[in-house]
Amino acid sequence: MAADLKIVPVILAGGTGTRLWPLSRQSLPKQFLSLVSDHTLYQDTLRRVAAPDLFHPPVVLTNADFRFFARRQAAELGIDATVVLEPVARDSGPAVLAAAAYVRERYGKDALVLALAADHAVKDPDAFVASVRTAAAVAASGQIVTFGIKPSAPSTAYGYIKLGDKLAEGGYQVARFVEKPDVETATRYVADGYLWNSGNFLFRAELLLSEGTAFVPKMVEAATQAVAGISEDIGFLTLGAEAFTAAPSQSIDFAIMERTKHAAVVEGDFGWSDIGAWNSVREVSPADADGNVTRGPVALMDSHNSYVYSDSTLVAGIGLENVAVVATDDAILVMPADRSQDVKALVTALRASHPRVVDEHLRMHRPWGTYETICRGERFHVKKIVVNPGGKLSLQKHHHRAEHWVVVKGTAEVTLGNDVFTLNENESTYLPFGSIHRLANPGRIPLELIEVQTGSYLGEDDIVRIEDVYSRV
Amino acid sequence: MAADLKIVPVILAGGTGTRLWPLSRQSLPKQFLSLVSDHTLYQDTLRRVAAPDLFHPPVVLTNADFRFFARRQAAELGIDATVVLEPVARDSGPAVLAAAAYVRERYGKDALVLALAADHAVKDPDAFVASVRTAAAVAASGQIVTFGIKPSAPSTAYGYIKLGDKLAEGGYQVARFVEKPDVETATRYVADGYLWNSGNFLFRAELLLSEGTAFVPKMVEAATQAVAGISEDIGFLTLGAEAFTAAPSQSIDFAIMERTKHAAVVEGDFGWSDIGAWNSVREVSPADADGNVTRGPVALMDSHNSYVYSDSTLVAGIGLENVAVVATDDAILVMPADRSQDVKALVTALRASHPRVVDEHLRMHRPWGTYETICRGERFHVKKIVVNPGGKLSLQKHHHRAEHWVVVKGTAEVTLGNDVFTLNENESTYLPFGSIHRLANPGRIPLELIEVQTGSYLGEDDIVRIEDVYSRV
Repeated sequence: MAADLKIVPVILAGGTGTRLWPLSRQSLPKQFLSLVSDHTLYQDTLRRVAAPDLFHPPVVLTNADFRFFARRQAAELGIDATVVLEPVARDSGPAVLAAAAYVRERYGKDALVLALAADHAVKDPDAFVASVRTAAAVAASGQIVTFGIKPSAPSTAYGYIKLGDKLAEGGYQVARFVEKPDVETATRYVADGYLWNSGNFLFRAELLLSEGTAFVPKMVEAATQAVAGISEDIGFLTLGAEAFTAAPSQSIDFAIMERTKHAAVVEGDFGWSDIGAWNSVREVSPADADGNVTRGPVALMDSHNSYVYSDSTLVAGIGLENVAVVATDDAILVMPADRSQDVKALVTALRASHPRVVDEHLRMHRPWGTYETICRGERFHVKKIVVNPGGKLSLQKHHHRAEHWVVVKGTAEVTLGNDVFTLNENESTYLPFGSIHRLANPGRIPLELIEVQTGSYLGEDDIVRIEDVYSRV
Repeated sequence: MAADLKIVPVILAGGTGTRLWPLSRQSLPKQFLSLVSDHTLYQDTLRRVAAPDLFHPPVVLTNADFRFFARRQAAELGIDATVVLEPVARDSGPAVLAAAAYVRERYGKDALVLALAADHAVKDPDAFVASVRTAAAVAASGQIVTFGIKPSAPSTAYGYIKLGDKLAEGGYQVARFVEKPDVETATRYVADGYLWNSGNFLFRAELLLSEGTAFVPKMVEAATQAVAGISEDIGFLTLGAEAFTAAPSQSIDFAIMERTKHAAVVEGDFGWSDIGAWNSVREVSPADADGNVTRGPVALMDSHNSYVYSDSTLVAGIGLENVAVVATDDAILVMPADRSQDVKALVTALRASHPRVVDEHLRMHRPWGTYETICRGERFHVKKIVVNPGGKLSLQKHHHRAEHWVVVKGTAEVTLGNDVFTLNENESTYLPFGSIHRLANPGRIPLELIEVQTGSYLGEDDIVRIEDVYSRV
């Protein structure tokens, strides 16, 4: 590789898994959660590719629902991410090809793209960067490089890669990709030196697109046209919807990697995991002397090799052996840790009976901050609202509810009808039924307020937005 | 027994067990909780002895902390209980002797006393009453009768009774009381026809006192003097404190039953349990086809023989076998069901690190109603307050906090300084630092209000009570 050719990290952050329920939910999936460190998985991914001598600023692919998470969590790290929105979900093939087309347009056809899942964990970021350097050299020589992970066990949760010829720049030609095996086959694969397929790639933008043109021409056509049709709104780029929607839905592995003759693999030994289920979270987290991993207020007696997470409620365990307990403020999961793969089926079963708790979090995230229900009754609803400094809710009204606001921290700027006034800590106001109002935080610290709604109908859909700085009208 | 001699039920309701934590806590122990039916254990006990042809109105022995539970939960059933308060805890000996002395004074020396624990469960109340009738006949003939339970298993959690000679009125002389055995000994006891000692008794008041005078004269002296010194306040009777405090602390079994020659046992087969631990709760509750007992929002997949309780948060379980999960709003317990006996040790260990959650409930009960914290921050605290119809909080002030009140249901009568005014649903008021105020519910339905406290110190002890209808000044 040319010493001055920096890599463009492309972070794929649009996924919505349910295997880590009740923490990961459709409205806030696992990449944006802090599961194995104080940062979110997405943030840790951004941090791994932040060295300015090696990497350009990141390009993040996600969807409209997650755009504010993607921007805010990058901003918290001081990273200026370009956030590109997929108008519809089309699996990883069209997304990675669109990213390649976008990078080619912005950085030229020889630009190197490092396509990373936003929701994987890596224990050793230095070893990761070393592997990336090797992979970049291999990619510059005309290969599409995948990262192969030395198996720590005959896992049946991953696909495997059979190694071919050794390459001069490091790594190997890929002899064959194989599907997730049964445990017997997996044991043989491990003995034969196969590697886990991590699903992260490094390639020259032009090479991926030309190989794509050979195997999936419609997909490449859709992706390049979607990039040509990009529109911008409050700093977010959205791929052309009509073009992108026309792309066939297929994984990049199936569309290109399993077909191209230019597939190479660089071996990585950096403590990788795709955090695919709760037992993976336990495996990548530091355990105590009894083998237990705990987060939050947890007290264990006579327990071993268990994973216990709690948002806020004390979890006490007696005699737990290989048990996983995940306690959020509105749902608690208990199971033997080796049943982690069954969470997906549980969530599917729960969706009919408990849709809210399956797909939404108690704390709802909005571009201006968060809100959460803290108490609910027949004709009232109490919320805690946090508005970020500079945040501004939409100008709105409600037909069926009145609201009492009590500021408990910071400063609120309240618009009520034609009046604009300030409320400080320990001050309150009343918003009658039907009044046009707006809440904003003009201060430098978060504004916290308690909202007591009363009325006969208190659904979130009783909101008439008149004006909104986040383009949500 | 004379056909017109009715029995006086004496309910012992002063206990504070921790084996059913996190539901049972010092501030609201298990007798006042609904664990195996829609009524509390105390209420079910009252209901078992409510037939007016057989029973006088009940006398309840408890302590000052529980006096309002004892009265209110009886009143909910339309039962007018005489609530007698023990000024200090002195085990069951002095309590039962004081009850005997009280009943003798009120109903005469031949009065029959049925002393029942408030926290036991009985599946078949009719069979229980049939046993009581037999026991009354035996007691009238000059015996102190204990109820012996036919063992359903060689339990090591109960003491046993060896049967002696059969009595003409039914039942047997007691040959011997034996301590809780190991499992081998228990198996032999069961084979030999021993019965469980339920710790519930029926006796003539005079006989218990005269036998007490023979074996524990100081205890009888203390108990009778404590009854002579009874004082009354807002309808509660309190035993004379100096006299009762002088009583030696000892169980009635040890003080009298194991020594008297007049101990008889009537066999009971009415589905009795002392609900001594979570596995007992499971055993006395109806199970589903998989052997699971659940209460509250619970979803189980592929689970068997488990007990799952939840106050309000959804508990989802996968692959649970013989597991107990008890989820309250501020503490969650998870364990194999057969570790139920270890909860006591867990609670002892937790008391140092988590005193509040060990001893107090999130919802605090007061004579006028309840309150609970729904949200807490650095300088604010949000509570939901429910005031019963006719309930009236003390006239009070706070040095360090201001309060905002928003009525969300019912009608509040607010005293603020020299003003008295009414707040209806969707109305609010503000109580500045240091203002003298009072809240009351003049209406016919419960008053619900949201209180937002702000200030630099928000402890419960920042309350200056100026006047109180419940004698708490």
